[in-house]
This record gives sequence, C-alpha cells and structure tokens, in this order.
Amino acid sequence: MGKFVYSFKEGSKEMKNLLGGKGANLAEMTKIGLPVPPGFTITTDACNTYYKKDKKIWDELLDEIMTNLSELEKTLDKKLGDNENPLLLSVRSGAVISMPGMMDTILNLGLNDTAVQALSKKTNNERFAYDSYRRFIQMFSDVVMGIQKYKFERILDDIKESKGYKYDTELTVDDLKNIVVEFKNIYKKELRQEFPSDPKEQLLLAVKAVFDSWNNPRADIYRKLNDIPHKLGTAVNIQSMVFGNMGQTSGTGVAFTRNPSTGENVLFGEYLVDAQGEDVVAGIRTPQPIASLKEIMPDIYKQFEDTTRILEDHYKDMQDIEFTIENENLYILQTRNGKRTAKAAINIAVDMVSEKLIDKKQAIMRIDAKQLDQLLHPNFEEKALKQATLISKGLPASPGAASGKVYFNASDVVAANENGEKAILVRLETSPEDIEGMVSSEGILTARGGMTSHAAVVARGMGKCCVAGCSDIKVSESKKELRVKDLVIKEGEYISLDGSTGSVYTGNITKNEVELVGKFEEFMDWVDEVRVLKVRTNADTPNDAKTAVKFGAEGIGLCRTEHMFFEEDRIPVVRKMILSKTVDERQEALEKLLPMQRKDFSEIFEAMEGRDTTIRLLDPPLHEFLPKKEEDIKNLADDMNISYEDILKRIEDLEEFNPMLGHRGCRLAVTYPEIYIMQARAIMEGAIEAKNNGVDVSPEIMIPLIGDVNELKYIKEFVVNVVEDVLKESKVDMKYMVGTMIEVPRAALTADEIAKEAEFFSFGTNDLTQMTYGFSRDDANKFLVEYESKEIFEKDPFQTLDKNGVGKLVKMASKLGRETREDIKLGICGEHGGEPASVEFCHNIGLNYVSCSPYRVPIARLAAAQAALKEK
Amino acid sequence: MGKFVYSFKEGSKEMKNLLGGKGANLAEMTKIGLPVPPGFTITTDACNTYYKKDKKIWDELLDEIMTNLSELEKTLDKKLGDNENPLLLSVRSGAVISMPGMMDTILNLGLNDTAVQALSKKTNNERFAYDSYRRFIQMFSDVVMGIQKYKFERILDDIKESKGYKYDTELTVDDLKNIVVEFKNIYKKELRQEFPSDPKEQLLLAVKAVFDSWNNPRADIYRKLNDIPHKLGTAVNIQSMVFGNMGQTSGTGVAFTRNPSTGENVLFGEYLVDAQGEDVVAGIRTPQPIASLKEIMPDIYKQFEDTTRILEDHYKDMQDIEFTIENENLYILQTRNGKRTAKAAINIAVDMVSEKLIDKKQAIMRIDAKQLDQLLHPNFEEKALKQATLISKGLPASPGAASGKVYFNASDVVAANENGEKAILVRLETSPEDIEGMVSSEGILTARGGMTSHAAVVARGMGKCCVAGCSDIKVSESKKELRVKDLVIKEGEYISLDGSTGSVYTGNITKNEVELVGKFEEFMDWVDEVRVLKVRTNADTPNDAKTAVKFGAEGIGLCRTEHMFFEEDRIPVVRKMILSKTVDERQEALEKLLPMQRKDFSEIFEAMEGRDTTIRLLDPPLHEFLPKKEEDIKNLADDMNISYEDILKRIEDLEEFNPMLGHRGCRLAVTYPEIYIMQARAIMEGAIEAKNNGVDVSPEIMIPLIGDVNELKYIKEFVVNVVEDVLKESKVDMKYMVGTMIEVPRAALTADEIAKEAEFFSFGTNDLTQMTYGFSRDDANKFLVEYESKEIFEKDPFQTLDKNGVGKLVKMASKLGRETREDIKLGICGEHGGEPASVEFCHNIGLNYVSCSPYRVPIARLAAAQAALKEK
Repeated sequence: MGKFVYSFKEGSKEMKNLLGGKGANLAEMTKIGLPVPPGFTITTDACNTYYKKDKKIWDELLDEIMTNLSELEKTLDKKLGDNENPLLLSVRSGAVISMPGMMDTILNLGLNDTAVQALSKKTNNERFAYDSYRRFIQMFSDVVMGIQKYKFERILDDIKESKGYKYDTELTVDDLKNIVVEFKNIYKKELRQEFPSDPKEQLLLAVKAVFDSWNNPRADIYRKLNDIPHKLGTAVNIQSMVFGNMGQTSGTGVAFTRNPSTGENVLFGEYLVDAQGEDVVAGIRTPQPIASLKEIMPDIYKQFEDTTRILEDHYKDMQDIEFTIENENLYILQTRNGKRTAKAAINIAVDMVSEKLIDKKQAIMRIDAKQLDQLLHPNFEEKALKQATLISKGLPASPGAASGKVYFNASDVVAANENGEKAILVRLETSPEDIEGMVSSEGILTARGGMTSHAAVVARGMGKCCVAGCSDIKVSESKKELRVKDLVIKEGEYISLDGSTGSVYTGNITKNEVELVGKFEEFMDWVDEVRVLKVRTNADTPNDAKTAVKFGAEGIGLCRTEHMFFEEDRIPVVRKMILSKTVDERQEALEKLLPMQRKDFSEIFEAMEGRDTTIRLLDPPLHEFLPKKEEDIKNLADDMNISYEDILKRIEDLEEFNPMLGHRGCRLAVTYPEIYIMQARAIMEGAIEAKNNGVDVSPEIMIPLIGDVNELKYIKEFVVNVVEDVLKESKVDMKYMVGTMIEVPRAALTADEIAKEAEFFSFGTNDLTQMTYGFSRDDANKFLVEYESKEIFEKDPFQTLDKNGVGKLVKMASKLGRETREDIKLGICGEHGGEPASVEFCHNIGLNYVSCSPYRVPIARLAAAQAALKEK
Repeated sequence: MGKFVYSFKEGSKEMKNLLGGKGANLAEMTKIGLPVPPGFTITTDACNTYYKKDKKIWDELLDEIMTNLSELEKTLDKKLGDNENPLLLSVRSGAVISMPGMMDTILNLGLNDTAVQALSKKTNNERFAYDSYRRFIQMFSDVVMGIQKYKFERILDDIKESKGYKYDTELTVDDLKNIVVEFKNIYKKELRQEFPSDPKEQLLLAVKAVFDSWNNPRADIYRKLNDIPHKLGTAVNIQSMVFGNMGQTSGTGVAFTRNPSTGENVLFGEYLVDAQGEDVVAGIRTPQPIASLKEIMPDIYKQFEDTTRILEDHYKDMQDIEFTIENENLYILQTRNGKRTAKAAINIAVDMVSEKLIDKKQAIMRIDAKQLDQLLHPNFEEKALKQATLISKGLPASPGAASGKVYFNASDVVAANENGEKAILVRLETSPEDIEGMVSSEGILTARGGMTSHAAVVARGMGKCCVAGCSDIKVSESKKELRVKDLVIKEGEYISLDGSTGSVYTGNITKNEVELVGKFEEFMDWVDEVRVLKVRTNADTPNDAKTAVKFGAEGIGLCRTEHMFFEEDRIPVVRKMILSKTVDERQEALEKLLPMQRKDFSEIFEAMEGRDTTIRLLDPPLHEFLPKKEEDIKNLADDMNISYEDILKRIEDLEEFNPMLGHRGCRLAVTYPEIYIMQARAIMEGAIEAKNNGVDVSPEIMIPLIGDVNELKYIKEFVVNVVEDVLKESKVDMKYMVGTMIEVPRAALTADEIAKEAEFFSFGTNDLTQMTYGFSRDDANKFLVEYESKEIFEKDPFQTLDKNGVGKLVKMASKLGRETREDIKLGICGEHGGEPASVEFCHNIGLNYVSCSPYRVPIARLAAAQAALKEK
C-alpha cells in the first residue's frame, strides 16, 4: 500500500531516494521557509509500482494525486480548469541522480479555451494568458506527446517574419490567439484527435509521460554507462505555476552562489525580464547579468541574495538556483549543488573551510580527482577558442593545449625547435624512433592508434599534449602535408591541438598557462595529511623527474631505460651492440654505452634529491631499435661497414609474430647477460657519482617481465655480482634493492616463490592487463569500440584497473608476496597509477605506492587521500 | 657415526637408497643363495659424508673398509697384493638411480709387478695374469686418473699390426709383458709419477674416483634434467674378481630373461669365451648368442637358465643380467630390471599377469605411457634403416615414419597424391594455406619452427609424421630443391622421415606397420577398467574422428571449424565473406558456406556414433584466411572483381601487431555475429541430419576466447536463438549445451561469473600457457633453447602443463566454476591432453575429461589409469 504522494510540506532533503533530487530540495526549501510555490511530489516508488502494474495509473495513486491536488487548490484558493480563478501547474521529472535523456518540464498545465479566458480576466492581462496558452500547447505536444518541435516553431517564425517582428514579445494578443488555433490544428493533424481540454486528463498524461521517459533508450544507456541502478525510478513534481511572463515587473533566471569558473565568492548568473524558464535557455533574447537586477529591483535583489546565503549555509555547498519573479514577488523553483571547473572547485572548497562551512576532510571529498587534470595543463583562452576553426576530432590522448607549425618527421621537428620554432609533430603513428621529435615538439597528432598507442603513452609520460587516432586526417609523410577533406595543411603551417578534448584547430590559439599556487597548494597539503598511499612517478629523464617532484612525487616508481637508447648519439652504438656477432663485439659497444647511461642515472638520482628511485633494466624487443625503411637500413650498413643483406637478415631474425609475447624483458638478459651487466654497473656508478655530489641514494634495480622465479634467480646473481663489484671498487657503502615487475600473470600466480628473490614488486598493470585479458593494446582498439557500443564492457580496462580479473591477480600476488617476505615493497607503475578508481583499489589492498606520469601525480595524491577517508 | 660399509651378506634389495641399485641387488642375490662373488658396499651416506669432509676419506671409513677387506680376504683365503695367492677386486659405482656420466668400473684391481707373478703361478696361466695386468693398468689410468684411452689403444694396435694379429687373444705372453711396460711408461709420462704399486693405495684412489664422479658436470646436468636429487650420493661396490679370461672354459656375457624387443618369453643375450666384461661392449670380437652356450657348456647353461628364472620370480620383472664363467663356474655379477620396447613391455606385462607373477594393476603401472607412442605409428624396419643414409636431424615434431617424393608446395603435393604418388611436403615453414597439402602428404619436413609450430601442431593432430625446424636444410621453394651441405635433393626425389627421432634420410625405407591387436587390446581393456578420467579427442574431420574412435576416444573435446574453411572449394567463399563491405554481402557468402558446414558436422556426428562432441566456433583472426603473396592477391582481385588496392587495403586493415592477442575468437563474433549464427545453424542442422540417420546426437557448442562473462552473454543469446529457431523449424527435440574455452587468464580468474552462462568449460591450455607465461609459442623457441641450456626451465611448459602457474589457474577455475554450477562439465583440449604428467594433474584436480590428438588417445588412457591407481 503505502503513501505515494508527498506534499512539499511533508518532505526534506534526506528523502532524496523517495522524492528525487528536485522534490527533496523543494520540500527542504519549503521547510526552511523559502518562497517556494506550493506543490507535491509523486514518489519514485510510485514509478516502480507503475511499471509493475503494466504502466497503468492505479486507483490508489489516482486518489492520492487528487487529494493532494484538492489540498493545493484549497491552499491557493484556485481550481484546476476553473473559469474564474484557474490553477496552473508545472510538471517536472526528478530522478535521484540528475539524468539527461528523460522528460524534463511542462509549464502552464491546466489551460484550455475557458481557463485561458478566466486567467486573462483574473490577471487583467490577455496577452500573458494567451502567451502562456500557446507555450503550454507546444510543450505538451512536444514533451508529452512527442510531436516534433520544429512544426510549431515554423508557425511562430512565419508569423514573426510576415509581421516583421524580431522578438516573441512583439506578438500581439491576436497573433497569439491565431497561434493557439494553429497549434491545436497541428496537434489534431499529427495525432488525429483533439488537444485534451480536460486539465485532469492533461495532468495524468503528463505524469505518465514522466514515468515512461524513465525507460526510454537514451535514459537506459545513460544509466548503464554511469552505473545508475535501473530500479531507482523517477519522481514527478507537480507545482503551482508562478509567472515570469507577466510584464516588466516579472522575470526568470538562474544563478550560482559563487563563480563556477573561478570560484570567486560573488553571485553569478543571469535573468530575463517578462519571460518563462525556457526563454533563458533558448537564447532568443540575451539574458542580463544577475548584478543588473540590483538596479532594476533592488529589494528583490536583496531578498534573492539573502536567500542564496541561506541556501549555501544550509547545503554547505555552492548552489545552482532557479528563480522566478512574478509581479515583484520572488519565488525559488529549484536548488542543487552547482557544477564547477576544477579551479573553482578547489577555490570554493578552500574558502569554505576558512569560512568554517565545511572541514578539511569534506573539502577533500568534494573535489573530483579526475577533474584536476584541467588544472595541470595549459588550456585555450575561451575568447580565442570561439574564433578558431575546428577541423577534426581525434582521441583526447594526453591533455593540454598546444599550438605550433606542423612537421611530419622527428628530425624536422628537432631542427625547427633548434631554430626557435614551436612545432607540432604529425605522424601516421609514432614509434620509438620518434622520441626525440616528440620531446622537441609542443604536441603530437597521429592519424592512427588509440588511447594506449605509443604516441599516447609516451606523450602522457612527458605531459605533452597529444591527439591520437584522428582518423579523418590523411597524413602524407612524403609530401609533408595533411589533408582533412578539401583542406590541405602543409609543413610549416600552424595548427592547435586540445589534448583534453581531442579537437584539432587551424592557426595559433592563445592559451592560459598553468598556475599551481595559492589555494591549490594549500589544498594539496591537506590531501597529503590524510593520504596513506605514497605517490611516485614514471619518469625517464631528469626533466620529467623535476616536473614530477614539483607536482609532489615522492619517488620514481618506473624509470624506463630504453628511451635513453634512442637518443641521436646513442642509437648507432645500440644498433652496433644488437648487430654484433660475438660477445666481444657486443661488449665493446656496451662499453661505449656505459658512460652515457651512468650520466643518465646520476642526473636522475640528483634530480630526485634522495627520493626512492626504481630503475627498470632494458625491456623492449631488440628489433624496436633497428631501422625499418630500406634507406635507413642502407645508411646503417654503410655506417657500420656491414653488408645490407647481413643487416636485413638480422632484422628478419629478430622479427616476431607476437612481439608483445616475444624476446624481451628479462628474456633478453638470459640470452645477453652483458646488457644488464652494463646497466647495473651504470646504475651503481651513477648512484655513487650522485652520492659524491651530496645526494643520499639507494637505487632500486628492477628486472622486467619475470614469469618464473628461476629467471629472476639467474639474472639477479650476475646483477648482484656486478653491483657488489662496483661498491668494492669504489669503496662505497650503499644500500640497494633488486626487485621485479609483476606484469606476467604467472608471476602473480607464483608470487610467493618470486618473493624469495625479489625485494620489491612493481605491478606493471599495462602488460598485466594485456596478458590477463589476452588483448594486445596496439590492436584492441579496433574491436573494443564494438565492445563499448554493445555494452559488453562498461569501462576500458586499459584506463581503469579491472578489479575482478587483473585486480584479483594483483591482490593475490600482494598476499603471496607478503607471506614470503613480510616487508616486501609493493607498488604499481602502469597507466592505472594515475586513475582515481584504480588508485582507490591500490589503497584498499594495501599497496605501498602508486606510480604515474608526472602530470597525474596530483590526481593520484587526491585519489589516495579520498580512498583513505572513504575507508574510515 | 654409523656404519658406512656393508658386506653383501648384510644387505637386501630394500636397501637401495643406502647401497645403491647395484649394491642392493648384489646383496639380495647373495641372500637368496645365488653365486655372487663376495664383496662389500660403501654406502651413499659415506659419499655424502665424504663431501662434507672436504673430499677426504676419514679414518673411520678407512677402518671400516679395511675390516671388510680383511673379512673378504679371510673368506676367500686370498690377500690383496699377496705374492702367493693375491686377491683381485672390481670397484664399481652404484647410484640409487642408474646414471650415465659417472665412473663405471675398474677390474683386476690389486695387481702389481709381484702380484702378477703370484697370480701367474697360482693359476698356472702366465698369459692370463699379464692380460689381466695390462687391462688393469689401462682401466685404472683411464677411469681413475683420467688419461685418455686412445693413448693405450694406439700401443695395442701398433703391436698387433707389426705382428699381423687380428684379435687380442693372439697376443703372446711376451707381447703382454712389453705392453705392461709401455703402459706404465705412458702413466709416468702423463702424470709424472709411477703407477701405484700398493694395492691399498689403488683401492682408495678408486673409491675416491667413484665419489668424485658423482659431482662431475655431466652427472650433475643429468641429475638436474631427470629430477634426481643431488643429495642421494653414490655407493661403491668392491667385489672379488672372477675371471672370464682364463681360457676356453671361461667367458662373460649379458642376458635378458625375455626378449626386450618383442617380449617373447625366451632367454635373450650374448656372451664371449675367454674374455672380460669390457670385451663384450668393445665389439672387437663378435659375441655368440646365448642359446649357443647350451651346446658348449650345457650344465652351465642349465644353471644359468635356472638362475634367470629364480631372479625373474624374485623380482617379478624381466631382468637384465651380467654373468661370468670362470673355469666352468657360473657367477652372477649384476641384475636389474631390463629396458624394453613398448611392444615388449606390453607383451611382458600381459604375459606376467597370466603367469600370475603380477596383477593387472601392477601391469598397468609398469608401462611408460610416453613409450606407447612407438606403438601407434609405423616405424622403419631395423634392417632397412641400417642401410639408409642419414642426411640431417630436426625436431621430432610428430611421431611415425614416412617416405615419399619431395614437393615444395601444397598444390604440387595434392597433384602428386592424385597421381597416386606418395609425397613429402617440404616447406620453410607451413601456414594454414598448406593444410590440403599436409593432408595429402605422407609426412612434413620444415626448416623453421619448433615443437609447437604450425606444422608440428597440425601434423600431430592428423597423426602425420613431421620433422620440424630442421635448420641445416636450405629449402628453395622457387627452385624446388633442398640442400644439405653439398647434397641437393630435387622435386620428385625420395626422402624418408622419422618423426619420433627427427631424422631425415635419403631414399625410400621399408616400414613396419602398426598393429594394435592381441595383447595390446587386452592391456588397454584393463586400463579402461581402472580409469576414471574420460579421454576425448581433438578431431576436425570425420576421418580424424574415426581414427580416434579406433584408438578408444570417448568423444570429441575440440572440433576446430577453421581448418574446414581452408578447403579448396571454400576458401574463395570465405574470402568473399571477409572482404564484404556490408552485412548483406557477408550474409550472402555465409549462406553459401552453410550447406558445406552442415555436411561437415553431420558427417562428424555420424563418425562419432553418439559420443559427446564439442564444436568450437570460428577462432583464428580473419587475416589468416587471406592470401599473402602479390600474385595470389591479384588472382583473388580478378576472381572477386574487386580492385587489387581494395583487397590490399583490407588486408592491411586486418594486420595486427600481436595477432595472438588480437581480433579473434569470440571477439570476431562481437563484430560479426553473422558468422557464429551461420555456424550454430550448421551445427544444429547437421545434428538433425545425423539424428535422422539414426545417430543419437547432443551437440556441445563452444565459444572460444571468452575473457569476460558479458562476452559470453552477448554471444550466447544469439547462438541460443538460432539453435531454438532450427529446432522449432524442424520440430525436433534435441539436447544441446553452450559452453566456453577457458584459455584467457581472466576467464579462469572470473570462472564463477562465467559459469553462470557456460554449461561446460574446456581448458585451452595452449593459449592459456601462452598468456599466463606471456610467451608467444611462435616466437619462444628462439629463447627457450637458452632457458633449457641455462637450466632456468626444467620442462617445456608447452609440452608438460606447468602445475604451479597455468595449473593453478586451471584448478582455481574448476573450483570457481563448480561453486556456481555444481554439474559443470570440465575438460582440457590443449596439447597437454596427451602428455602423461599433465593427464595425471587433470585427474588429480577432478576434471571430467582430457582431449588430445587421435594418436595420443591410448597414451592419455594409460596415463589416466595410472593416475587413478597412484591416487589409491
């Protein structure tokens, strides 16, 4: 049985699940005495029961609605459909969580041919009455009955054009009366029945329409995508109308209690005189800034300002408020927590703490960690952006905004950069050989590849703006031009990229620069106070390391050594090493690399100023270092004095069917121990150099791709030997650790055995995700698109750690690892280390740290703090 | 402290761990009263203690040896080094498990310049005494002191040549005396010291040498490879000499109690008159068959025959016996269980059951399941093989023997086959396009690829002989020839392959054919009586299915549908399906495939005669079906009336970085549901056809590569729809199941969820091994060789299921699956399904069945029975 309808006087903000967000807030505002037009709410329970009863409004519900309607009529001394003092209603949906795709609002319900005359007489405003009537017919036809809007708008436009009007307000009473007739004709023609003149029938049709909209396909998809349970249902709010369209002493508007862009504590919003709600949105007339209301209706402004204060104090958050002024009477029609930019969010949270509205913990929980990304990268000036030409959209692979001249290969970018030009690297797709070009560029644009393609991963690591997989751009690397449909952009011409949205523009767009000072710093200090999980960074260069430290990184979780191998002065030596036929030849090449790597490491150790630093030994398959194009191979042959055929043969030998599962990582070191021996020496010698420069270093040496403890045992033995040799040679005492990546499922499954040899585990969740799912991230984008559109996957497992599968392995390995070695250090260093939901998972299973790209460090810090607070 | 030396009278066969295999059996034979020359055994404990004491023979041990020696001297009334009646000894190693690579035997120990004269006098046989002396010096120098044998043999050869002797027996006393002098000179020259004349010194040096040989590198590697614990240690057997070299009434030999090739219950062996043990092995004189002893020394023969009976009755197994006859006295020097062929093993076991020597269970445990392979494939006639020319050796990829004319591409093989020729397909490596050629060939030879390459896997599936990765063969597919060094074999010339050894021969070698009747059948019936685990087969054609049923398969665990797609009349339609641009075009091509697949399935169902049959829907990435060579692409373009560029583009679109982790399996069905819909229809229509022909069918439809329950849910829905449609259309009632492969680690980890949708799990342990280890089986051979040589892996995880990692997932998934669905059917269908250790694992974790290639079905049956017996 139960109660299915609540008057606004009966509810409160705590009853959101039953009354929906809107209904609960209307009741709350009524309770605290704000001027809310009276009304009542049909509950979400009623919605669910409606579906159980085959979408029929049953007698009990009908009774409750009618009882509440009578009460409302009594309160206002008006009557629905009355021919003297007619009551008009608004009908609005109100789900627990606000949801696009559902029916929104019907205004002026209750009008018919007699009620409109009564309204006209009562208000002594015939124009207002017919204006309301024509609005109602259009809205009801569109929203409740599904007749397309443009059919009505065409009639309005025709009349305005024939009469030479600019605004709707110029329509005369006669115009409006004609419009009403014509609108009713459309209704009849479309639905082959008369427009319903019985106000109660209108009301029930509207209520049914709200219920039905809960189940329309768009709403359904939205719920699935946003994890909103289907069983929540929607409430329906029925409220007496107040009118902003009663002339110059009336109006309607929306306002935020603080500036939603900057967070400044000043009322922010706009309103329209003589208008109803939808006019503000429609943009036919330009609304006025809220401040100007102060001059026009100072008393109302004062009353409104006081009300916003009351609401903010009451809800303890910045509010987004809808209001209407009817003949110099203020009414509040809705309030809710306002959406805001990351900058505003932080500024408001910090201000509210100093205003004692909320405490620090509440402030921390208020900020959406993902949103922080906005703050950490430059973005385009809004004004400049409005004038720019959007030419294409790709994947938002690495956030930020960048402008520069386009170049189509890495060396041209490097050259341009040396000439002081800002350059954008445009490629079909990038490969490790493009690294130097990527470093020298302002941003990267690729035509192929997904969110985890080489370009995307490397760019995010560098904090460099990148738009990837922009498939309608045709890149001709040979002609040095790109085409989008008919537009041709040649080398040296400007484009701009927005890596946060994937947009590509022509020209050079002015940008806002990053400013992480003041309240941001204060806020992040609070974050660090409650955080338990450490946050490290993935950094391969001293520069990355410095950036990350600036963003609060507490160490390096992953320093990849392969990018270093691609630098211009090294790649020939690296290639020589790979092509050598004997161990001696390889040794010789490695000896040339040793001082270079030593310098890499000493500089990184110095940049980290004593923070923990994990260095991963060489990981990628060797063929990645060899040239692919005929010309390059020929050049290499000449350089090295080897025959073209010999090099070609070696390249073919190194080719693999599935390089991801091939001869890489520790498997290289089993075949060529010399490589890791050189790297281990370079790490220790670099560490000693840094120590001599006054930095307290204790390196963590990481062996990648271990799947069996015997691999680690074999490699660790010679690594430890060389480490001990270096320490003995230099007579230095230094702590160090040898550990491993856990990125192969078997390593996770046998972590108890592996922990016998490994002093730390770093979960490489990128590869672990690839192998656990059996997805090659280079190939999976092709079919994962279908997985998303067919709703097989809710989330991309390369972006958010898959708790059920990959996460299960991580959890299992952590447990097994600790069983063998109680104090084993555990962290993750995959892309997931900077994704809030994944960070929360890492906190919950008790890892010691997450490691992510420098620009995601603040996000990870916040997510870790929120996870700690949630746990309590 | 303990006791380190046991007289033969003190031990027994149960003391193998302490006395070693040889020592325990010498003691046992002594105990049951057989004529064993007396002696004693130094224990394996002594060996371990020796290593703990820094390889020194400590006082206590020395005391014990000397006490036992005195006792022996007393028993025999001889004395070591005595100048009247000298005792001579043999010293032999004796580990718990017989082990090549260790020191073997020293005979005639105790001789020196005085003892030789005493021996001569005592035996009245100067020639014998000096013959024994020269043998001793050579053996001691070689075996104990490590002087190379050839140095001694050269001297022997020189004398024989200069005197014109053919046999050693022609050497005169003077010759032998000279030889002794020269041998001692070599010793002195090599070691810069005199040959030790003190017999006790000789003895202790020999004991030390046995101990030391336990730790030599070859023995060490052998132990690691064969899982023999290092701590076992070796025993040393010191035994009084008996002499087969005392003239025509003496001799020495070896014999098996039954024929080790056929199992026939007849004494089998050979002996030499006037010889010591090593002469039989050396092959200087041709030994006589044991039967001829009956004529020469009938009493001795009778005594020997009786002894072998006693031994077989006592040990209840066929024995391999060493004996010596000294002046018409028989001595037994060793007995052990004899090695035998698979055929002999089965015949002997079955015979022994009927002789009531053993019971059926013991018979089952006696047979090495792996060895059965020999029985199931033809092999070369021994005689013919001896005359054949071995030209190369590759990997023994699929067992059996094959001869035929070489052809270098699939269509030439098909053509030759149609002309009634036997053909061998020779390829650099095979690809799915070679399937028809493989089917039509007698055997396959590839120059590249490992034990799990395409050629190997497919050949094993077909039970076809294959030698893979034969890397010193240069194959020129264009010139249609192969080269091995200077030898050129052209198209049409004969070669022969032994797929069990990897040997490649020139010419056409006569073969023994397979005969699985009589005792084999009887034995396999016993096997099936104790077996719990069911054995199914992996079969893709009616022919394979029939073969497997003949071998005892109880169902099909994996019927791959992709090989069917490669048949000549289908591949154009398949390609059309892949290249179609619209769903309609694809539908049209699929409709052409439908009747073909229906026929495939109805024939397979009929071949299986109502046994459970699991059919896997399409699995491989689509690019596998498209041509690779320019010419083929052009032909396809002409055939299909599509532009060359269009096809090329499509091929490029389908290219993948890691096809193993790419767009395949159920992922194809998410993108192109039409394919599985056609296959599901074909399966059901085929099943109905078979049912109409009187076969009781209930198909099991298997969805491959599931990693997330939602994939299965999505696909199962349309598969079940089409199945139900077909049943409704044909008004037939038929049971069917829909299940999944568990081959992606995530599927195993989330098996509880997947079991909600899957009615059965089939563990695809090939792919599961690839993904769990992160090894591409197409690439891993390159580095797994190093893994084996560096002893990182003991076993190839693609051959023997890795219990710790992959097995853990299988076990976990079985448990989770059963938690959700109690009666879920569980099986494995990877290569491991036919490997005994893996079958045992499957039995132990309670799977319902294993499925393997037809020719491995008997192996799996036996392994399953043994697992069941072991469990009890």
